Amino acid sequence: MSDLFIECKYIIAGSDCNTIIRDGAIIIENNQIVAVGKTEEVKKLLAGHDKLERTNHIAIPSYINAHTHLPETLLRGICDNEKLDTWLNDFIWPFEMRMSSEDAYYGALLGCLELIEAGVAGFIDQYFYAESIEKAVTEAGIRALLCPSVFDNTPESGNLDNTWKHVRNLVSSKASNKNNLINYGIGPHAPYSVPEDCLLEIKDLAAKYSIPIHIHLNEIVKEVEEAKEKLGDTPIEYIHKIGLTEEKILGAHCVHTTDREREIMRKSNFTVLHNPQSNLKMTSGIAPIYKYLDLGIDVAVGTDGNASNNDLGMIEELTTSAMLQKYLANNPKVMENANVLKLGTIYGMKALGTESKGISENSIADITILSLEKSHWWPQNDPLSNLIYSSSSSDVTDLIVNGKGVYLNKEHQSLDKERIIEKCSSIAHKILTEMGN
Amino acid sequence: MSDLFIECKYIIAGSDCNTIIRDGAIIIENNQIVAVGKTEEVKKLLAGHDKLERTNHIAIPSYINAHTHLPETLLRGICDNEKLDTWLNDFIWPFEMRMSSEDAYYGALLGCLELIEAGVAGFIDQYFYAESIEKAVTEAGIRALLCPSVFDNTPESGNLDNTWKHVRNLVSSKASNKNNLINYGIGPHAPYSVPEDCLLEIKDLAAKYSIPIHIHLNEIVKEVEEAKEKLGDTPIEYIHKIGLTEEKILGAHCVHTTDREREIMRKSNFTVLHNPQSNLKMTSGIAPIYKYLDLGIDVAVGTDGNASNNDLGMIEELTTSAMLQKYLANNPKVMENANVLKLGTIYGMKALGTESKGISENSIADITILSLEKSHWWPQNDPLSNLIYSSSSSDVTDLIVNGKGVYLNKEHQSLDKERIIEKCSSIAHKILTEMGN
Repeated sequence: MSDLFIECKYIIAGSDCNTIIRDGAIIIENNQIVAVGKTEEVKKLLAGHDKLERTNHIAIPSYINAHTHLPETLLRGICDNEKLDTWLNDFIWPFEMRMSSEDAYYGALLGCLELIEAGVAGFIDQYFYAESIEKAVTEAGIRALLCPSVFDNTPESGNLDNTWKHVRNLVSSKASNKNNLINYGIGPHAPYSVPEDCLLEIKDLAAKYSIPIHIHLNEIVKEVEEAKEKLGDTPIEYIHKIGLTEEKILGAHCVHTTDREREIMRKSNFTVLHNPQSNLKMTSGIAPIYKYLDLGIDVAVGTDGNASNNDLGMIEELTTSAMLQKYLANNPKVMENANVLKLGTIYGMKALGTESKGISENSIADITILSLEKSHWWPQNDPLSNLIYSSSSSDVTDLIVNGKGVYLNKEHQSLDKERIIEKCSSIAHKILTEMGN
Repeated sequence: MSDLFIECKYIIAGSDCNTIIRDGAIIIENNQIVAVGKTEEVKKLLAGHDKLERTNHIAIPSYINAHTHLPETLLRGICDNEKLDTWLNDFIWPFEMRMSSEDAYYGALLGCLELIEAGVAGFIDQYFYAESIEKAVTEAGIRALLCPSVFDNTPESGNLDNTWKHVRNLVSSKASNKNNLINYGIGPHAPYSVPEDCLLEIKDLAAKYSIPIHIHLNEIVKEVEEAKEKLGDTPIEYIHKIGLTEEKILGAHCVHTTDREREIMRKSNFTVLHNPQSNLKMTSGIAPIYKYLDLGIDVAVGTDGNASNNDLGMIEELTTSAMLQKYLANNPKVMENANVLKLGTIYGMKALGTESKGISENSIADITILSLEKSHWWPQNDPLSNLIYSSSSSDVTDLIVNGKGVYLNKEHQSLDKERIIEKCSSIAHKILTEMGN
């Protein structure tokens, strides 16, 4: 496909996602949006562009899933109703320890299929088998910030020492090699699972290559209490004390934080990766996102892995996020509609390390298109409200990433869906059988 | 369409929604399920039935939306982020007071379109213009329990006295005339908005015709506090004291209840109509559904009206419900998957006044079919888990109500969608223009 001319009934334009263009068009050349406006105006610039007529559709900046563990697609639905210990010990870890790098590759491919169908142009990952994930994402043609997990006892490298050696080599070899769509960060699992000396070496690596540190923080109450006992401080105070916050921190969850921790977050280069559905389902709590936003702390939204959510779509995640914050703040004025969309798009891109001005001239051409066919889109008193509160992931018809259509008219352009699904079904079946399920 | 033979990859069967039949089939004759089982077995009974081949699909008992205000579709998206007073005084009431009975008819038709597309076979309503809604639902061919609102100052009948006279006449004329799909109850708005003498007359009417009383109860903290001051009791204690709980009560919301109120609910013929998304978005709170279920109190789930939610789909509502209860109970074991589905289906039918045994022989033929096409359905480690936590309303392809296909292969069989959408768009535009929006 060459350069594109896209015609839509509505376009949510601008870096603040608050300009709605009715009967609009977009011109994409290479990976950039070069024109956006009323169709009659933009049409004057039409030359040899391929046309996408989407006249009963809405175009929005593409979603970014800011925290996940992509190959966990394979674990979808294996355990929904158990306490954390049972969930981990009897289901998640036994499954993961049986996973090969090839299994992870196929799981990641399925994750890419699901992200693409939900209009998600990229994701931030923390998992082992990062090279398998990279291979899958490269084939899919979407964006990723891959942060290989540093964790004790992984199926890829065994104990923490070996894992850290492997991750250090991998990240060192990848990080100097900046790619348009796929970049590397580093993923120490959490302050309670990675010892201090290792965290300090991770900090040096992050500093050397100017890459972010993606780490789970303050997810559950017990973790915060144990940190106080064992590390002498709450998790975010602890990582601040040892100097980790001198680097860019992508802090997943941040459900339970103190005023002092929020002050640290505010003063450092810190982005909260918020996972509202996983936090409910795992009984972790509700992160005070409205407070973070008030303080000017960056926030992006993710789904967490399929083992805990159980899907990768961002539309429902953002609806949940908006409703929960209104409830938590006891104030319906928080989470205004355009801001909700920004959390899932522009701020996600920023967390990923890529500047986006949404659907604006000279912005990067990541565009998601949804059909307005379903009755839940009518009447269109406010299409942005309909997007946030009434639409569903399955309304997505097209996804353009970096100027390329990876999903057109609900057809995958980059991946062989049938083969991936078949392969993943048989992998999941094989592992579950081995586990005796 | 004559009698039906439906073939599916999965069927969620049985009155407990916990039997998954793989490669199954269903035979429907008139409005009954007469056979369900493995396709090879059921096929032996195949005679002149029309065939629906849905071999990459899952069949489930149809959803019931247990609390809504159907013509509010017209108000979708007009106000998402204001406090209750502003929301009501500046948006909802000014819009509703400009609504004609014809407007309400078209709004209800749009509501039916949306319910049908989301696989919802019926709903419990509380609104004015009940006859307009009845006309729409009759055309749509779905189920309804219509409970005309008794409320001061409605666009239909003006003040409370006139409204009550109108509703009494309407309900008296309808209630003796039992219909298969559409029945009437009575809808006193709330204890704080309907005076005691009127509530007592409503009670007598309900007793005379054995119809349920559908009433908003204990939705927000302020309402409970004011009830204590003005009525001398919390709302449910108050309606119990005056004898209303001698009749069947459909209590919408029940977010803030005391132990004593729960004891009243448990001992009477009481069903909680739970609206989790509306309760979050309107900052009302989270109803303790897990406690009600523990006590054996009936619960069904609804969306509330489109002005506060903003859609009528039950899949996302049930996901939210399950996740919120796990969080609230601080226990992931509550809201086990089959029970979540029952809340939205079998228990909804019970609240509606119709016994259903789900997809079982000799049960009523209300069936929703969803496509397994999207990647979020794979792998199928547990199709019921995928339904609850990964699927989306837009996956629905077919809806059978009382044995009749009202939606087949995503095509409406009963309603003219284009005309309804056009009409509703122009009604909403006209009213919003009059309001100066």
